[in-house]
Amino acid sequence: MNGAESMLETLVNNGVEVCFTNPGTSEMHMVAAIGKSQGMRSILALFEGVCTGAADGYGRMADKPACTLLHLGPGLSNGSANLHNAKKANTPIINLIGDHATYHKQYDAPLTSDIVGLSGPISHWVKTVACAEDLPADAAEAVAAANTHPGQIATLIVPADCAWNDSVAAVPKQTRPATPLATDDAIITAAEMLTNGKPTVILLGNPALTQAAQEMADKIAQTTGARLFCDTFSKRVPRGAGRCDVQRLGYFAEQATEQISEVEQFIMVGTKAPIAFFAYPGQPSEFYSPNSRLHTLTNANEDAEQALQRLVAAVSAEHCQPRLIQLNKPGAGSGAVNQFSIGASFAEYLPANAIVVEEAATSGAGSFAASAQCEPHDWLSLTGGSIGFGLPTAIGAAVACPDRKVVCLHGDGGAMYTIQSLWTMARENLDICVVIFANRKYQILQIELARVGAENVNKKTLDMLDIGNPDLDFVAMSTGMGVKATRAETTEEFNQQYVDAMNSKGPCLIEVILP
Amino acid sequence: MNGAESMLETLVNNGVEVCFTNPGTSEMHMVAAIGKSQGMRSILALFEGVCTGAADGYGRMADKPACTLLHLGPGLSNGSANLHNAKKANTPIINLIGDHATYHKQYDAPLTSDIVGLSGPISHWVKTVACAEDLPADAAEAVAAANTHPGQIATLIVPADCAWNDSVAAVPKQTRPATPLATDDAIITAAEMLTNGKPTVILLGNPALTQAAQEMADKIAQTTGARLFCDTFSKRVPRGAGRCDVQRLGYFAEQATEQISEVEQFIMVGTKAPIAFFAYPGQPSEFYSPNSRLHTLTNANEDAEQALQRLVAAVSAEHCQPRLIQLNKPGAGSGAVNQFSIGASFAEYLPANAIVVEEAATSGAGSFAASAQCEPHDWLSLTGGSIGFGLPTAIGAAVACPDRKVVCLHGDGGAMYTIQSLWTMARENLDICVVIFANRKYQILQIELARVGAENVNKKTLDMLDIGNPDLDFVAMSTGMGVKATRAETTEEFNQQYVDAMNSKGPCLIEVILP
Repeated sequence: MNGAESMLETLVNNGVEVCFTNPGTSEMHMVAAIGKSQGMRSILALFEGVCTGAADGYGRMADKPACTLLHLGPGLSNGSANLHNAKKANTPIINLIGDHATYHKQYDAPLTSDIVGLSGPISHWVKTVACAEDLPADAAEAVAAANTHPGQIATLIVPADCAWNDSVAAVPKQTRPATPLATDDAIITAAEMLTNGKPTVILLGNPALTQAAQEMADKIAQTTGARLFCDTFSKRVPRGAGRCDVQRLGYFAEQATEQISEVEQFIMVGTKAPIAFFAYPGQPSEFYSPNSRLHTLTNANEDAEQALQRLVAAVSAEHCQPRLIQLNKPGAGSGAVNQFSIGASFAEYLPANAIVVEEAATSGAGSFAASAQCEPHDWLSLTGGSIGFGLPTAIGAAVACPDRKVVCLHGDGGAMYTIQSLWTMARENLDICVVIFANRKYQILQIELARVGAENVNKKTLDMLDIGNPDLDFVAMSTGMGVKATRAETTEEFNQQYVDAMNSKGPCLIEVILP
Repeated sequence: MNGAESMLETLVNNGVEVCFTNPGTSEMHMVAAIGKSQGMRSILALFEGVCTGAADGYGRMADKPACTLLHLGPGLSNGSANLHNAKKANTPIINLIGDHATYHKQYDAPLTSDIVGLSGPISHWVKTVACAEDLPADAAEAVAAANTHPGQIATLIVPADCAWNDSVAAVPKQTRPATPLATDDAIITAAEMLTNGKPTVILLGNPALTQAAQEMADKIAQTTGARLFCDTFSKRVPRGAGRCDVQRLGYFAEQATEQISEVEQFIMVGTKAPIAFFAYPGQPSEFYSPNSRLHTLTNANEDAEQALQRLVAAVSAEHCQPRLIQLNKPGAGSGAVNQFSIGASFAEYLPANAIVVEEAATSGAGSFAASAQCEPHDWLSLTGGSIGFGLPTAIGAAVACPDRKVVCLHGDGGAMYTIQSLWTMARENLDICVVIFANRKYQILQIELARVGAENVNKKTLDMLDIGNPDLDFVAMSTGMGVKATRAETTEEFNQQYVDAMNSKGPCLIEVILP
């Protein structure tokens, strides 16, 4: 058994069953090993950013890592933007990066680069395999790193000769690393804050947004009068009927500071105190007032659910029943095409247990608001601000949950970063409905341009934020990659096309032309 | 004048006149400054890999840097694969990377990452601006770094507050850094080797492939009997009628070792001794025999033309006239569609002074061979092995040389990495004819799979190297991005479409269906 084969068997033994791949020559023995493996599904992408974004979506929904197979430094670079997002989400992912054979690196061949250097910024864990005999154990270590709560990016660099040389037996199934618990002091302090009568917010981060965590937080809120918020951008939020009401902090400072004005205390669960996404001239980066009392119940790597359970007991909230949202659909949208009419229809017809992947930027708020009380669903958002997340992440979510409808809400500008995703959706016949909000501009940037105080803006400046001239035709591009597509220029057209999509299986794309 | 404005004026003063941009909020003051600048042309791309590849093409043809404007770590990551290629080509490029305001970094906002860490592997020079007052001088330093012979990647990280705060006056035009010269010993040794009667190859790298350098090398070859070769993948090679005959080393070991069998001595000019692109089990990485005598006339950073001039004198070759290739077109292709029939037509109708950008992988050899004696042209190839170079590089070449026809020969798989390039071609109405060789597979990988000795290959393995199912429709995708496109299923169809393209201006795409 060569190194690649023993590595593959190790990964499969440890629950890694999907590989999103865009390989090259230095990965050929890993490709052959995947080909022979019964337990590893391989999914080809035409660009590495699709692979890594798909692994993000898969990890968010499967709660275990997929692997990516990438071609040396450039393959990793192409996948790094979506690994940045996944790292901020703490999604478990294993990157397998093929490298030149150990003895070949000295020649500085064209594809030679500092892969370790490139890996550091987008990984929690990096290792270069030294020899074929080490590869199975290194692979097991990578799985353990990826599965370290709440999920990590583990990057394993595999020189070609480590893959092709003879190796040792695969590593059997290992236990997951234990998750650190909150200290008693952290619980006691939180309980004291929640019962001292001061206005308090509990801010839930990714590990504290499971349905169970939300319900415990809601019981605490009922008992203590605290208010519940979550980060603006979260890995995965269960929402809709049957879930608890957790408000999302606004993106812009004036939204967020209004939401939390008068608040004197913040208890963070698996996240940090609320700050601005970007700095703006003359404005503070912190959304909370300088006099606020800040307390971290659990850091991101600690067990948020267990801490909330202890906090429920500490504030005597065991008797409460979580207040669950009742189904109350918004009604289908009508009239002018805009993010609110489209958002209403999106929510009205969203099937139960759908997965929503959103990178709709300025067009997304309408859909988010309209779906607060619709059928239960999971909402996946852009955690790292790196554009081109939505389409690939929808792929991964659909692979992890083949029985659930995936709806991907996307801005037109953002969709172009990883537009190659459509081909993989077609190839794998994934049950994804992509909705493109086509406003033909980087609208968020036109807003930000004004907000940062740039003066005397002229046409040349605005042209850098405008993606019309020529208008993109998403129907043509999508069709060209094998995904059937339609264009909606009225709300009624959208409603019909979207209902059709919800009532059928397989990939499709709807381009909504915003006036 | 704020930092961004003074930086822009500094860049323009120092001959930087084109910015390939995909900006975000942290770059808004730079966007505004570009908007106000009379001397800086801005060219928008829908993906950062297009920006960096375009800067590579521009730098190769203009012999001076363009700048890119990229959005924090993820924007840089998206552009890094093509920066890898540009670094291997020693193309001058200035990357302007917007970062969070200096005081905002402590908050670890979603887009925060280790930009310095990401920059190192793909740059020759990296600097983070400390304050707005430093920005003009830092920009001048970046220009000097980029212009350091034979060209470097200079990455300047600009925190947002350094762009928006008040700054000092712009830096005026600076002189280019001097280029180191070859040592006398290097010349003497080369002359001795060339006159000792042993079979000798002069291997020309990028800095030694100018028309003047080729002519001097040819004079040396005439006088001494040495043979001339260039690297397999070069930054820019003047070819065709009126140029000298320099053979390209083969990609595969058996090709290259046959070309240089019996050779006992290698004189490298601006490059390294010939080695394999990839390692293969049981095969040597070095193409030369272990007994070969290797001598470096000039390293990549030294003045190759000046060294060749001295070597011409040292071997008394001043009297020779360079042997120039006579125009001898191959005749248009006919019959079955394959890389040879298409390549013949490509060469037959290629207009004088065209620029050819080639990333056609297994489909490229026919065009290269057929064009050896066609109209004079420049040939730009993939120097770093990072896929997705061709379309963006064609953009940059067309921007640098608006009066020359650009023909981009591309494989279908590779074209998908940066397919967004087509939109920028349309937006800027660039005179580029893209020829897609659509074989619906990663054919080079199918060849490599066999060569690396992977055994018992099955359908699952081959599916990872096959991009049919569904077939990509480049005509639809191209049209969807505003570039008119046609499909050629016969050689005659190709000939007609290609002649039309050569006789008109503006972007177009021809998808050649290979059986």
